[in-house]
Amino acid sequence: MSVEFSVSLGERSYPIYIGQNLLSDVGFLQGIVAERSVAIVSNETVAPLYMDALVKALGDRVKIKVLLPDGEQYKTLDTLSRIFDQLLGAQCDRSTLLIALGGGVVGDVAGFAAACYQRGIAFMQVPTTLLAQVDSSVGGKTAVNHPSGKNMIGAFYQPEAVIIDVDTLSSLDDRELRAGLAEVIKYGLIRDEAFFSWLEENIDRLLARDADALVYAIERSCRNKAEVVAADELEHGERALLNLGHTFGHAIETATDYSSWLHGEAIAVGMLMAMVFSERVGLLGQEQRQRAENLIKRAGLPLIPPSELDAQTFVKHMRHDKKVLNGTIRLILMRKIGEAFVSSDYDEDRLLLEINSILDIHK
Amino acid sequence: MSVEFSVSLGERSYPIYIGQNLLSDVGFLQGIVAERSVAIVSNETVAPLYMDALVKALGDRVKIKVLLPDGEQYKTLDTLSRIFDQLLGAQCDRSTLLIALGGGVVGDVAGFAAACYQRGIAFMQVPTTLLAQVDSSVGGKTAVNHPSGKNMIGAFYQPEAVIIDVDTLSSLDDRELRAGLAEVIKYGLIRDEAFFSWLEENIDRLLARDADALVYAIERSCRNKAEVVAADELEHGERALLNLGHTFGHAIETATDYSSWLHGEAIAVGMLMAMVFSERVGLLGQEQRQRAENLIKRAGLPLIPPSELDAQTFVKHMRHDKKVLNGTIRLILMRKIGEAFVSSDYDEDRLLLEINSILDIHK
Repeated sequence: MSVEFSVSLGERSYPIYIGQNLLSDVGFLQGIVAERSVAIVSNETVAPLYMDALVKALGDRVKIKVLLPDGEQYKTLDTLSRIFDQLLGAQCDRSTLLIALGGGVVGDVAGFAAACYQRGIAFMQVPTTLLAQVDSSVGGKTAVNHPSGKNMIGAFYQPEAVIIDVDTLSSLDDRELRAGLAEVIKYGLIRDEAFFSWLEENIDRLLARDADALVYAIERSCRNKAEVVAADELEHGERALLNLGHTFGHAIETATDYSSWLHGEAIAVGMLMAMVFSERVGLLGQEQRQRAENLIKRAGLPLIPPSELDAQTFVKHMRHDKKVLNGTIRLILMRKIGEAFVSSDYDEDRLLLEINSILDIHK
Repeated sequence: MSVEFSVSLGERSYPIYIGQNLLSDVGFLQGIVAERSVAIVSNETVAPLYMDALVKALGDRVKIKVLLPDGEQYKTLDTLSRIFDQLLGAQCDRSTLLIALGGGVVGDVAGFAAACYQRGIAFMQVPTTLLAQVDSSVGGKTAVNHPSGKNMIGAFYQPEAVIIDVDTLSSLDDRELRAGLAEVIKYGLIRDEAFFSWLEENIDRLLARDADALVYAIERSCRNKAEVVAADELEHGERALLNLGHTFGHAIETATDYSSWLHGEAIAVGMLMAMVFSERVGLLGQEQRQRAENLIKRAGLPLIPPSELDAQTFVKHMRHDKKVLNGTIRLILMRKIGEAFVSSDYDEDRLLLEINSILDIHK
């Protein structure tokens, strides 16, 4: 089972391939790489698993393999600089194709390296985690972190193709798989109620890593993301919906120093907080919030924010986010499952009050 | 005397303003900045001359002034990182407008900072050297250097406007002015014979810094550049013509460690070498090359490459250039004044031979 569809961005359009055995399909890989020289950027965890297959398929097209240390803490300008050193050392030129093989960190850093190297070279995303497959590999956001904030330095830079081989998920640990499901559920919540219902039916198949179910869930997620990105590539409007739960989640990740919570876990709690706030201000029905909470729970994701956080700190961290515009925190709120919207038109005192109340309940 | 015209790049189109007294025109500056908060990036040499005027005009819109040390050696990822530190420290967000006030180095670094900060914020170029006014401020090329090569890390990122106040040229030293004229002459050579003839008539007025002549020469240069960029924003074809003399010049700059030669001086010699090679292989008439040589000489620019260079080293440095594609050095050659073209179809042994001969003549 394998599917292919396109992210429609005019002359920057590109295909997404989703299926099994893609990384061992020599003809397929050689076909899309053609005769170009290739630089593969991966990390020390992923490379031992999948690098050989790629190198076997691409042969002496592969000019250099760049291995990054594994972890969000290496998503820095320093790491970027080291990638440039190696690309230049291998005399990679403007015609070199960069392949990002790994999870979200590898994709973000390698994609940004491709965006900047000699003012931009072609690159492909080969995401190997569910989170990267349904989120970061599609849409062209690339970045590194800055000590003052996540993804503060980066570019909108579209890949030439995204290759999603679901077989790579067999090596993913359960916690990472569940974290990825948070973003999958997000697409249902923000704009695709039918998909949300499908997820309610099939969440156990996904947790059991049924290949057909994974291909379908990834396809549907990527199609949703592709549609949003096509409508608003540079995040001036609708694309902000993809941030459901992210401003709340960002506060959790910052407060816990990006160490104890996975991104998807923080997003799960963040989405729920956005829904509880939507419910409290009368936008979202209680039964809708409950349905969402049930699915998040069945996916094995956390439901409550870390106990050490107080509401003031929470809002302070929310404010220190790229999504803040002219000082106002823009929230993604919900009207019902399948319908989210961007709001700057809420009472900030009320927000503080409700966050306080949410945190209190769980103390 | 003041002119305004547009660089046509679809939704990325932007105006170029050229005239006198623009930096003291409060209404004009406030009009284009509107109510946005502003970060001004400049350097320690330029800021004392023109920063006050800008700050006076923009008042408390100016959130932060970032001062870089002066010099090409600071065009690095490190400097970039320090700009990010300061923008983040001042809580600049996605709505902040970055103004690059200075020469080519400031424009390149600050433009690249704008391209990457929070994945891209608006920026304006306020170039204060002739070289930056006629070349680097228009066209959206931004970059920093890498120890292995110039401009190796960067982005194509278009400014929102370019403001060229020719009054800033009064503080430029003669050598810098002449170096800027090399790029002005280049536009005549590659695609505008009528402008070349105008330059033959008016080169002395330009050297005497006649304001009307400067406005006209800068306008005509920028219009030529804007047309080329509009036809080929990402340098897949025609834009390469702008590199006349640059591959040869790059070798001179590299060999002399970017210390003793100004960019425009290296380009002047590089253009002449490209023309001598074109003449020797029977493409360009001797009298055409002589006419060009005369104008370059009258502009007070150097005509002969540094004596310490041998032909092998020259070609080695030429090969190590971004413009090399799949290992082939693409040369910009000339058919006549006003008509340059890209060529990969020449005999490389012949190139080596002719460079050797050119270097020998001058030993």
